[in-house]
Amino acid sequence: MSSEERVAEVSFNAQEETAIRTRLIRLQEKITEAKVPVVVLLCGPNGSGKNAMLEILREWMDQRRLNLHAYERRNVRQDPIEFRRYWCDTPENGYTGLFVSSWYSDPLTARSYGKMDDGEFHKALDRCVLFEKMLADGGAVLCKIWFRKSGKAQEKFLCALDDDPYESWRVMPDDWKNCRFAEKFDETTKMLLRYTGKPFAPWFEITDGSLSERVRSALDVFCTRVESEIAARAAVKPPKNKEIKLHKAAFLKKVDMGAALSKNEYNVLLPYMRARLNALLTEARNRGKKVVLAFEGPDASGKGGVISRLASSVFVRDCTVFPIAAPTKQELAHNFLWRFWDRLREQNLLTVFDRSWYGRVLVERLEHFATDAEWSRAYDEINAFEKQLTEGDTIVVKFLLYITADEQLARFKARQEVAYKTWKIGDEDWRNRDKWDQYETAFDDMIAKTDTKYAPWYVIPDNNKKFGRIETMRLLCERLEKVLDYVPDLPKPDLPEKAPRKNGKKKN
Amino acid sequence: MSSEERVAEVSFNAQEETAIRTRLIRLQEKITEAKVPVVVLLCGPNGSGKNAMLEILREWMDQRRLNLHAYERRNVRQDPIEFRRYWCDTPENGYTGLFVSSWYSDPLTARSYGKMDDGEFHKALDRCVLFEKMLADGGAVLCKIWFRKSGKAQEKFLCALDDDPYESWRVMPDDWKNCRFAEKFDETTKMLLRYTGKPFAPWFEITDGSLSERVRSALDVFCTRVESEIAARAAVKPPKNKEIKLHKAAFLKKVDMGAALSKNEYNVLLPYMRARLNALLTEARNRGKKVVLAFEGPDASGKGGVISRLASSVFVRDCTVFPIAAPTKQELAHNFLWRFWDRLREQNLLTVFDRSWYGRVLVERLEHFATDAEWSRAYDEINAFEKQLTEGDTIVVKFLLYITADEQLARFKARQEVAYKTWKIGDEDWRNRDKWDQYETAFDDMIAKTDTKYAPWYVIPDNNKKFGRIETMRLLCERLEKVLDYVPDLPKPDLPEKAPRKNGKKKN
Repeated sequence: MSSEERVAEVSFNAQEETAIRTRLIRLQEKITEAKVPVVVLLCGPNGSGKNAMLEILREWMDQRRLNLHAYERRNVRQDPIEFRRYWCDTPENGYTGLFVSSWYSDPLTARSYGKMDDGEFHKALDRCVLFEKMLADGGAVLCKIWFRKSGKAQEKFLCALDDDPYESWRVMPDDWKNCRFAEKFDETTKMLLRYTGKPFAPWFEITDGSLSERVRSALDVFCTRVESEIAARAAVKPPKNKEIKLHKAAFLKKVDMGAALSKNEYNVLLPYMRARLNALLTEARNRGKKVVLAFEGPDASGKGGVISRLASSVFVRDCTVFPIAAPTKQELAHNFLWRFWDRLREQNLLTVFDRSWYGRVLVERLEHFATDAEWSRAYDEINAFEKQLTEGDTIVVKFLLYITADEQLARFKARQEVAYKTWKIGDEDWRNRDKWDQYETAFDDMIAKTDTKYAPWYVIPDNNKKFGRIETMRLLCERLEKVLDYVPDLPKPDLPEKAPRKNGKKKN
Repeated sequence: MSSEERVAEVSFNAQEETAIRTRLIRLQEKITEAKVPVVVLLCGPNGSGKNAMLEILREWMDQRRLNLHAYERRNVRQDPIEFRRYWCDTPENGYTGLFVSSWYSDPLTARSYGKMDDGEFHKALDRCVLFEKMLADGGAVLCKIWFRKSGKAQEKFLCALDDDPYESWRVMPDDWKNCRFAEKFDETTKMLLRYTGKPFAPWFEITDGSLSERVRSALDVFCTRVESEIAARAAVKPPKNKEIKLHKAAFLKKVDMGAALSKNEYNVLLPYMRARLNALLTEARNRGKKVVLAFEGPDASGKGGVISRLASSVFVRDCTVFPIAAPTKQELAHNFLWRFWDRLREQNLLTVFDRSWYGRVLVERLEHFATDAEWSRAYDEINAFEKQLTEGDTIVVKFLLYITADEQLARFKARQEVAYKTWKIGDEDWRNRDKWDQYETAFDDMIAKTDTKYAPWYVIPDNNKKFGRIETMRLLCERLEKVLDYVPDLPKPDLPEKAPRKNGKKKN
């Protein structure tokens, strides 16, 4: 009894072992071939069959394509962004991610201990379902198995472990506590299973039988679920992308594309903006907050220049800039948000994305790298992503640097003519330029659908680079002042008294 | 004056700017083409020209191939493994890594503040030199620039910053402290430059002139150094690999390849070993220690089976197993140790490598993936790597699981015959088998050169899998008992009284 949890105790006869092992290996071949990511959740208390199942999968499957995830709960709870770790750990296409403790652990425990009321509990479960929906929509197969066990049986099991000097290490203080709260756990588990079992991520309960029978059932559930989902996916052919319907860009209405600053104004304003931004970021740090900025805009709209001015408002170590190019092979084999989660794993005070996750609804939409279903869904997915960041410790602000088509042409020509700028211009830029109207429509849809209260968009006219740089910093400062409810104590800059000049012509 | 550190204050005329920007962009093209990693160190106090240089490189170079690294010193000092972060941040081939604070920061400050005596200081510098030598040997171009500045000039500079409401944020409390210790800093810097300037990583000092002149000199130094190193590398052709000279394997002398355990003995010993190992790992955790294990051995020597038994001695969350296969493209573009440093970035209590960094002196040696110079040098590099881990918080133990050629043949045949095992056997395994004698020689060289006091090798006869599993756990326990000077209090297992059976025949 004391070794109930050991693989040795799960006894299959030779014929059965052959059948199961062959099925598992075939399944793994199918997963690789179908290039789907598989997410397996094994839930339940110690001794329920969960660990026995796990040991069999570790022993019998190809470990190179099976990633095991278990978490020190304390570390997970310390992360202000609830799903960050789970997102970073989602398996890539063709791989299986085995989650032994998961996004359900904390809500389950908290409600069972009476530390979370039902309202909060359901909200926490909603977030779990949303996460799983995003994975499933992205093509992942989800297989969730809950090994149920009665409080009585658990008590007997723990006593037996405790009595065996070689097995007592398996009993953690929390095991006894959970046993004491067994009825509450049982009730909470039932609620949880009912509430979070969805067609795209159903629950499979393992309730009866000996350890071997439980593991046998779970293995069958796992294989059947993944086999049938892969078959279902193979049957569906993605429809062709529709032509984009152009419409006039509403986001430009309020933007004065002729706005400009003189060199004198710029030189007076830059140190002021820098000091103001520095004070606000210092305040953010003192409050345990981080800042994430996303920059989008047409080629040559001056993102790099704005970003380097912004970045020089803090010490080098406090800012990380990520230039985002085409995804690598590994990144492509994940959900499109994964590479951004991965870059936010260890977050700096200020993190700047030079192009961002909005590529999904811009270049990927227009070049048909994403299907219509994928990019249409992405607005909601992006909103959910940014919501998570802002509900954590992160302030998210987004900037669209905009220039007129004429200004872009002038900048392209300058790039072609200056030796040290030619690397910045290639065929792709000219091809993108041909799609100016399509991009304008895509920018407009993007702003209409993702300009949220918690993560607003700002459109910056950047025909005049000096204006664009100062304006971005000014709007960022204003946003931070609002979010932090804090205004730095700085003398106002000594500007010549006059209205901002309007100036459409090129002025660098 | 207050804005001495701003790029705006570095004034180049148009012609000069064109020349410098063109040179920088050409240089970056050459770096990409030559596929060398470039490591640039910019050292010196604020206002010395360091930050102005940095801003120019950020502004004028292609940011996609320039990675900037600065560190919160506190975080670096908290890491028990001194160079881990730096290793993880080394640039890949064709990229430039710009280190603004670096491995010299802490020794410099500590000695200047009188917190480190000269003996420790020189030891710390030795470690810096060793790190740079490994990078240079691996093909990296190192360019180290120190911007010198007198204490007087620094004082004046800090006062000016402090007086300007828009610039005072740049002054950190440590700046004034360092200014107070200016003479000590000056003396320490001189020692440091003398001691760590090496032909493969020379120092370039920037001492005189205005800010513009300093930056101009530094830019010239940077370009000239990298250009000439790339030219020098292009001129050298790697010699062909020599044939391997076979010799008899001494490591097998003390190994009893016939050792075996009965099923009964195994079933009694396994829970005991597991409990013992668990107690030792718990003790290690309580002392803030981690454990890293490396497994090597011929194909089919049973590494997976041993590892899964070992791993089941702790909770799932406390052990990470890395199966090591051929390096990815990104991994290949780094020093061969990088992918292991990267996996050790966030270390679990127990980390197990199923194949390891020893691939360099095994498969890479025999398949000529590494040149003779590379794999010959690797023994020292590996020793240095393991020394760093063990001087930090990590206990390193290495196991060579060994089987006889006959036993391998029997296991290969079994793999071919059993449907669920065929994925484990391919042409490559048979090709490796043809090189049995070469591998035996390579294993022997490996053990002769890397069996160190701080990271010992154990050779485990694994013709009998039960014996191999228990023996590995037993030797690991003994090693941990010795290192931790702690023996767990556990009842001895109840074994039938007899000498271990000798048994050469297959017994799984």
